[in-house]
Amino acid sequence: MSRSSSISGFPELLPQQRLVEQRFIAALERVFELNGFSSINTRAIEPMDQLLRKGETSKEVYVLRRLQADADGSSDSGLGLHFDLTVPFARYVLENAGQLQFPFRRYQIQPCWRGERPQEGRFREFWQADIDIVDRDELSPHYEIEVPLVVAEAFAALPLPPMTMHANNRKLCQGFFKGLGLADPMAAIQLMDKRDKVGPDVLADLLRKELGASEEQARLCLAFAQICTDDSSFAERVRELGVEDPMLDEGLAELTAVIEGVRAVEPGLIKADMSIARGLDYYTGTVYETFMSGYERLGSVCSGGRYDELAANNKYRFPGVGMSVGLSRILVPLLDDGVVAASRDVPTCVLVALPDVDSRPDCEALARKLRARGIATQVAPAAQKYGKQIRFAQRRTIPFVVFPDAEGGEPQVRDIRNGEQVAFDPQTWQPPSEDLWPQLEHSGS
Amino acid sequence: MSRSSSISGFPELLPQQRLVEQRFIAALERVFELNGFSSINTRAIEPMDQLLRKGETSKEVYVLRRLQADADGSSDSGLGLHFDLTVPFARYVLENAGQLQFPFRRYQIQPCWRGERPQEGRFREFWQADIDIVDRDELSPHYEIEVPLVVAEAFAALPLPPMTMHANNRKLCQGFFKGLGLADPMAAIQLMDKRDKVGPDVLADLLRKELGASEEQARLCLAFAQICTDDSSFAERVRELGVEDPMLDEGLAELTAVIEGVRAVEPGLIKADMSIARGLDYYTGTVYETFMSGYERLGSVCSGGRYDELAANNKYRFPGVGMSVGLSRILVPLLDDGVVAASRDVPTCVLVALPDVDSRPDCEALARKLRARGIATQVAPAAQKYGKQIRFAQRRTIPFVVFPDAEGGEPQVRDIRNGEQVAFDPQTWQPPSEDLWPQLEHSGS
Repeated sequence: MSRSSSISGFPELLPQQRLVEQRFIAALERVFELNGFSSINTRAIEPMDQLLRKGETSKEVYVLRRLQADADGSSDSGLGLHFDLTVPFARYVLENAGQLQFPFRRYQIQPCWRGERPQEGRFREFWQADIDIVDRDELSPHYEIEVPLVVAEAFAALPLPPMTMHANNRKLCQGFFKGLGLADPMAAIQLMDKRDKVGPDVLADLLRKELGASEEQARLCLAFAQICTDDSSFAERVRELGVEDPMLDEGLAELTAVIEGVRAVEPGLIKADMSIARGLDYYTGTVYETFMSGYERLGSVCSGGRYDELAANNKYRFPGVGMSVGLSRILVPLLDDGVVAASRDVPTCVLVALPDVDSRPDCEALARKLRARGIATQVAPAAQKYGKQIRFAQRRTIPFVVFPDAEGGEPQVRDIRNGEQVAFDPQTWQPPSEDLWPQLEHSGS
Repeated sequence: MSRSSSISGFPELLPQQRLVEQRFIAALERVFELNGFSSINTRAIEPMDQLLRKGETSKEVYVLRRLQADADGSSDSGLGLHFDLTVPFARYVLENAGQLQFPFRRYQIQPCWRGERPQEGRFREFWQADIDIVDRDELSPHYEIEVPLVVAEAFAALPLPPMTMHANNRKLCQGFFKGLGLADPMAAIQLMDKRDKVGPDVLADLLRKELGASEEQARLCLAFAQICTDDSSFAERVRELGVEDPMLDEGLAELTAVIEGVRAVEPGLIKADMSIARGLDYYTGTVYETFMSGYERLGSVCSGGRYDELAANNKYRFPGVGMSVGLSRILVPLLDDGVVAASRDVPTCVLVALPDVDSRPDCEALARKLRARGIATQVAPAAQKYGKQIRFAQRRTIPFVVFPDAEGGEPQVRDIRNGEQVAFDPQTWQPPSEDLWPQLEHSGS
């Protein structure tokens, strides 16, 4: 593993890995903006009462204190680092509701912090890339089709292993457990979310012990969670379990629309999967998880859903639907495995060789001419022998070296990968377009 | 002031302001990469002993604690948020020295945190954009000319008021105060740094009381600090003060080389200014400050210098030179004053109008065709009357609306700024290049 991690859970990338991360982020930004999403950044900190509104993650929050707070008697306690981008976004929407245009389409790419135990793909500092569409009072259901399609378009722009989305619907689950006669459907959903961790036997046990489910109810819960289809046939299979409830009907209809809507544009992208629960309690409609082929062990790398009650003030509520791409969770394992790389290690396309110390101003002037034409150029650090200057470029994988005084004092440029050397005019020479800037590459064997 | 600031000192931008910030950052990144600088990101947190190595800012550090640390008996104390990007960079260089290529050119654009009292241009969370060049053991002095030129190139790529850099040299100051006979030259430098705050009279007083300077020594210190020239004539004016010291000679020669080197490329950019001190004790050569015309009250908006001893391990030392652009300090006041803006509020270039609900899949397909050609497009949220759909675009300053069924069912596109409407083919229609993406604009009157 090449990245440094002197403090566990806080990964840092080497410059050539960071180049990959930058290209990843740029590709996401481009796709999100092509789809009309505006970027926002929120401050890293939130009031603790905002962060603790939801129970589950509260214990993982990093709390802040000013070192001088002790000395001057004041206190910043009550502030913590955000652990996701959804809570800050909800707060941002409420604070700026009067100045935003609804439906508001936003993306947000920032680090988040959680004090949980680090493991593969799970860090204490990690980058998320979120998109959400929120509206005022009512949110049209077609956005539940659009959001996963935008995310899929972003994934397709990157050299990633295949991604599969799994969707479910909160009303469908809640209606099913209610229709089944379980007293606390939300508790059932949160239990079902542990299915992958504990396995079906323990889960059945928990359903009986914690929720007072009968053998038959537990059996039907497990049968329900096993339903997973590529198309809308899941609805029939759920109905075959014989449970009836109006909320179940509503959820089945909503999920059918999402699965069919996505399938019409991207066949094979999304499955209806009754085992997907999403423990967080703010989802009210469709929920999504995404798995990366060959990296299923990482769990979901992109999750989200529809929430109708996350943000509300005295006048309005702001329902929304969004997905959150686990940028670090995806990227760091792929970098560790050498699956993605950049076509070179540095932005520099051209090294201008330095014939002697006194030529530096002329060489810098030549470099400026190339930069003015959008070609990344630096001048060699010292007037060493040309062999040494070429090795300087090779070690950094800079593809081209310009010799200002090559043939009879005329400049030439060498592609140091194949040794080809030709006459050089700084006003007209152009590198092949794939060499202009580092490119993302799938380097898996 | 349009940005929200529900917690003082933690500014947040509206989406249209964030668009400006994004374009700012993209312009900086591009210029830095054109000059062969590699991006790195460091984690937001550092061990407290790293953060407290320098005295002055220690009291402003935000200390972290995991909320559950109390419960599980463990502790994360000993971690704090970084207050600049220099300390993390020095640590990064040491940790990764074996895997970096020297001289190492890096840029780094990230938020920093300081618990100091917020005021105009000074925030508790603020973005910095740093460039540095570090080498192993020896750093060639020509980088002290290169770094301010790269920063000036970045400023020139942005719609900013004119910037003026002021440079001094730590050896020059130290040599001057030593040659003058002051016992503690570093203490004198730190006192001189307060000159702007306290004024010359109080400063003279402090020099006498705190450093035991005589009337004549204090007078010469003040005369020294008043020397400020556009060219290398400062050296003669310093010599006229009659102070002699070998380190002063060295500093005069170094600063002369920097001033003349920068002046040869960018006349008028840089001044030699003996009043520039930079309180931080790690600088050992050239120091820089930068002032924005009309915004001198913000203080320096881009500072830096040469440091020979910031990073060292058992085998090597890593001298460097860098400058730090105060991105938030520059941008937030300009946004507040309406001096910079983007040419529109959202990334979207085209709104596809929705004739009726059933047309959504067709309209989305049309939008995908435009997006595939790099044109940011979204579909109207609802099949309202076209007048309403046009107003939807107007409120967001989306320049073009496509009507899929305009004339005899054939699509047309309207520039809603001038009402011009023409036939539309999604495979060939192209917006004017200045409309493709939002552009940065200087909107000052």
